[in-house]
Amino acid sequence: MADKIRVTVWNEFRHEKKNAAVQKVYPDGMHMVIKKALDAAGGLEVRTATLDEPEHGLPKEVLEKTDVLTWWGHVAHGDVKDEVVERIHRRVLEGMGLICLHSAHYSKIFRRVMGTNCSLKWREAAEKERLWNIEPGHPITQGIGEYFELPHVEMYGERFDIPTPDKLIFISWFEGGEVFRSGCCWERGHGRIFYFRPGHETFPIFYDVNVQKVLVNACRWAKPRIIKADSCPNPKPLEPIRSAKA
Amino acid sequence: MADKIRVTVWNEFRHEKKNAAVQKVYPDGMHMVIKKALDAAGGLEVRTATLDEPEHGLPKEVLEKTDVLTWWGHVAHGDVKDEVVERIHRRVLEGMGLICLHSAHYSKIFRRVMGTNCSLKWREAAEKERLWNIEPGHPITQGIGEYFELPHVEMYGERFDIPTPDKLIFISWFEGGEVFRSGCCWERGHGRIFYFRPGHETFPIFYDVNVQKVLVNACRWAKPRIIKADSCPNPKPLEPIRSAKA
Amino acid sequence: MADKIRVTVWNEFRHEKKNAAVQKVYPDGMHMVIKKALDAAGGLEVRTATLDEPEHGLPKEVLEKTDVLTWWGHVAHGDVKDEVVERIHRRVLEGMGLICLHSAHYSKIFRRVMGTNCSLKWREAAEKERLWNIEPGHPITQGIGEYFELPHVEMYGERFDIPTPDKLIFISWFEGGEVFRSGCCWERGHGRIFYFRPGHETFPIFYDVNVQKVLVNACRWAKPRIIKADSCPNPKPLEPIRSAKA
Amino acid sequence: MADKIRVTVWNEFRHEKKNAAVQKVYPDGMHMVIKKALDAAGGLEVRTATLDEPEHGLPKEVLEKTDVLTWWGHVAHGDVKDEVVERIHRRVLEGMGLICLHSAHYSKIFRRVMGTNCSLKWREAAEKERLWNIEPGHPITQGIGEYFELPHVEMYGERFDIPTPDKLIFISWFEGGEVFRSGCCWERGHGRIFYFRPGHETFPIFYDVNVQKVLVNACRWAKPRIIKADSCPNPKPLEPIRSAKA
Repeated sequence: MADKIRVTVWNEFRHEKKNAAVQKVYPDGMHMVIKKALDAAGGLEVRTATLDEPEHGLPKEVLEKTDVLTWWGHVAHGDVKDEVVERIHRRVLEGMGLICLHSAHYSKIFRRVMGTNCSLKWREAAEKERLWNIEPGHPITQGIGEYFELPHVEMYGERFDIPTPDKLIFISWFEGGEVFRSGCCWERGHGRIFYFRPGHETFPIFYDVNVQKVLVNACRWAKPRIIKADSCPNPKPLEPIRSAKA
Repeated sequence: MADKIRVTVWNEFRHEKKNAAVQKVYPDGMHMVIKKALDAAGGLEVRTATLDEPEHGLPKEVLEKTDVLTWWGHVAHGDVKDEVVERIHRRVLEGMGLICLHSAHYSKIFRRVMGTNCSLKWREAAEKERLWNIEPGHPITQGIGEYFELPHVEMYGERFDIPTPDKLIFISWFEGGEVFRSGCCWERGHGRIFYFRPGHETFPIFYDVNVQKVLVNACRWAKPRIIKADSCPNPKPLEPIRSAKA
Repeated sequence: MADKIRVTVWNEFRHEKKNAAVQKVYPDGMHMVIKKALDAAGGLEVRTATLDEPEHGLPKEVLEKTDVLTWWGHVAHGDVKDEVVERIHRRVLEGMGLICLHSAHYSKIFRRVMGTNCSLKWREAAEKERLWNIEPGHPITQGIGEYFELPHVEMYGERFDIPTPDKLIFISWFEGGEVFRSGCCWERGHGRIFYFRPGHETFPIFYDVNVQKVLVNACRWAKPRIIKADSCPNPKPLEPIRSAKA
Repeated sequence: MADKIRVTVWNEFRHEKKNAAVQKVYPDGMHMVIKKALDAAGGLEVRTATLDEPEHGLPKEVLEKTDVLTWWGHVAHGDVKDEVVERIHRRVLEGMGLICLHSAHYSKIFRRVMGTNCSLKWREAAEKERLWNIEPGHPITQGIGEYFELPHVEMYGERFDIPTPDKLIFISWFEGGEVFRSGCCWERGHGRIFYFRPGHETFPIFYDVNVQKVLVNACRWAKPRIIKADSCPNPKPLEPIRSAKA
């Protein structure tokens, strides 16, 4: 591991090219806004990658130099090649951190590491969301108060079809009457995974100071503690085996 | 759900056809020994299915009439068609129980519901195994004492690359010096999953009375509590949304 | 275990004697309303016990004939004798079910089995609560839809200082802007514990049909799977010890 | 939090005063050997405290300057005053780390934070123990290989009556045939708790290089991430409450 945490910010980057409303909010793409926020935090070395680059910008060499991968996708989950998903999955199990944002709940990589449908309720009504911080001692909530609010969001509601999180750190209240497990931590293989609900293509969610704080904290939390290739060894016994005589 | 729990015992059924040593232990296939044990227990309606049947014996109609699927595979994991794995996976998330036995740790379906490598250490030295029952109150350990022993087994050792089990119920001690999390419970979607370590093609493990008890108990534990198709609904708000005016 | 599940409904029963507003809602005490709901469900044999009876109505003989104990207390947690709490605690670890309701979050017995403060936010503003069912397959949510509402409640808000539940089954949305983990399951020793948020002395919560369904389901879920006294045995080795010669 | 992690090593310190065999192994007390190992690691500021000091060496001022408390007791658990246990408990829930060693499984403080009996099997036969590292990526196992061995130990066997650990990091194999969950992590309130099995008054366990590594790592892992006093606030609503009119 390098001294700086090497983060690769991945973005589908399709909405921003085709939709004027999205372009207005994210003229250079959502990834550039996220990158800027991470750069400003210090201690992170940030690159970006997008769907339409060769190998979606994630060849083996890039993943090997990535400590934490953040993922945003929405309309083109199906265009992500299975071999790239396979490569990312292997890397997560080896120890790389993975942070899935908002509509990435339905990305191939998130569904693969979870093993579940990852479905949920949704509604676009520009309503208010309040995220309650239920683990004030967790590294990802450092600097966040008891709650923070986002004035206009797309709603995501329960039941969110995920494995029970190792640690649930945010629960959202929505103006329209729903709740959601909005910040969820898991460990899989040697890697850490964080799902964070906020983020949308037309609401300026990634400019929000609290969302940015959480993203920075999550990159620090998810950095590899070990990198270890998978194996299925066939060792000699450590003790004498007497039963086998029988 | 029918009154009886409808169990489908799936077996790769390749070893038994080609290998005389295996044939001697399981002349009609391992699945027939498991079926017989489940039939004898009462309350279970048991069918079998094997790899070389059309659709591996698991067409849609069979899965729809299956409450609990038990799985044993070893040399031919790669021959199981992805579309059948996909179908089983969906059914588990809808509520069907899944019981994976021994070398099924490396089956496509187990790895898919776990989201991890499911790798482990292994050794064939005919050593002794002692399975400690660490949850005597769990339905799967009913009738099992503090521990039970198997005189000659293939060893599986840690680290077993699985998500932390919701409940760990057996830990194995091996004569050669290893330990293993041998009975592990998870819930995924609406379905229950049990991994049980014992089982091998040349040792007569599935004739063991304690192993049979655990299998029967596990089928009862894993039966569906609900069957519910996945969805991703777009509901109207339950409360008036005033923020959106802004 | 008897054929019927033997439930003891415990109530502090102080508010009802002193406060006219409470008496109007629960003229015979909250426990009698809960008892009536459980009686109506069938399969449960229900008795009651209250604080001001000798030994709080919970002598050894009663606990030994109790499969599931439900607990409601509020103003007199401190009057519950430590020796009775100790006796209940031991019985839960042996396998008895425990269901703690609403303000019982601060009862001695709940804090003792949790090992945490069990503190929370609260507000009496007669606001609306909507409980989201996030585990539709769980036995405790059988017959409950996606959510149910209570028109006027005392609010409880996060952070609720509890150990991470083994299974979180209800999350509440409150009109005033908070959220709460309202249905939480744990296992401790051989016993099962359920915390359920609804319940209040002046709002007629325990008359609500959904609350009553959850209580009935919870009694069925929490019934003992085993009853086993604690021990700390000193067994002989099961294998020869050769190292000790050194 | 200070720059250095402030560790208080607590020892019952009774065996060492009365028993010649123990005195030979730990002439200055077990706590001095542990202190020395922690001092040598760097980054830790270590003090000690023992049972027979006033307030067991743990007055309020000491706890307030303690980031991590390690605990060893055996014959005199009952002599630890309840008010001191209460004080420690409160401090753990506020964020202080707690590391319980070997026979501290039966200490008042460990049983109180767990809420269970914490009973187990035990045997003094000087047998061999092999601790398997099942979480090589965990901070507490840094520098520890796949396993490490202790040549002569007191055996602890399952069932260990504890709440399911948040993370299980060591499983022990014993020569006499048992297994044990030997390294267990939990979070309670804002504090982190680690139980570590090795340690005995007549075997020189705390001189072992791997045991010392684990202790150092555990102190680093358990240090407070936040210190926060408990409260049960009564906040104003964040949203207008319209239902209450009814």
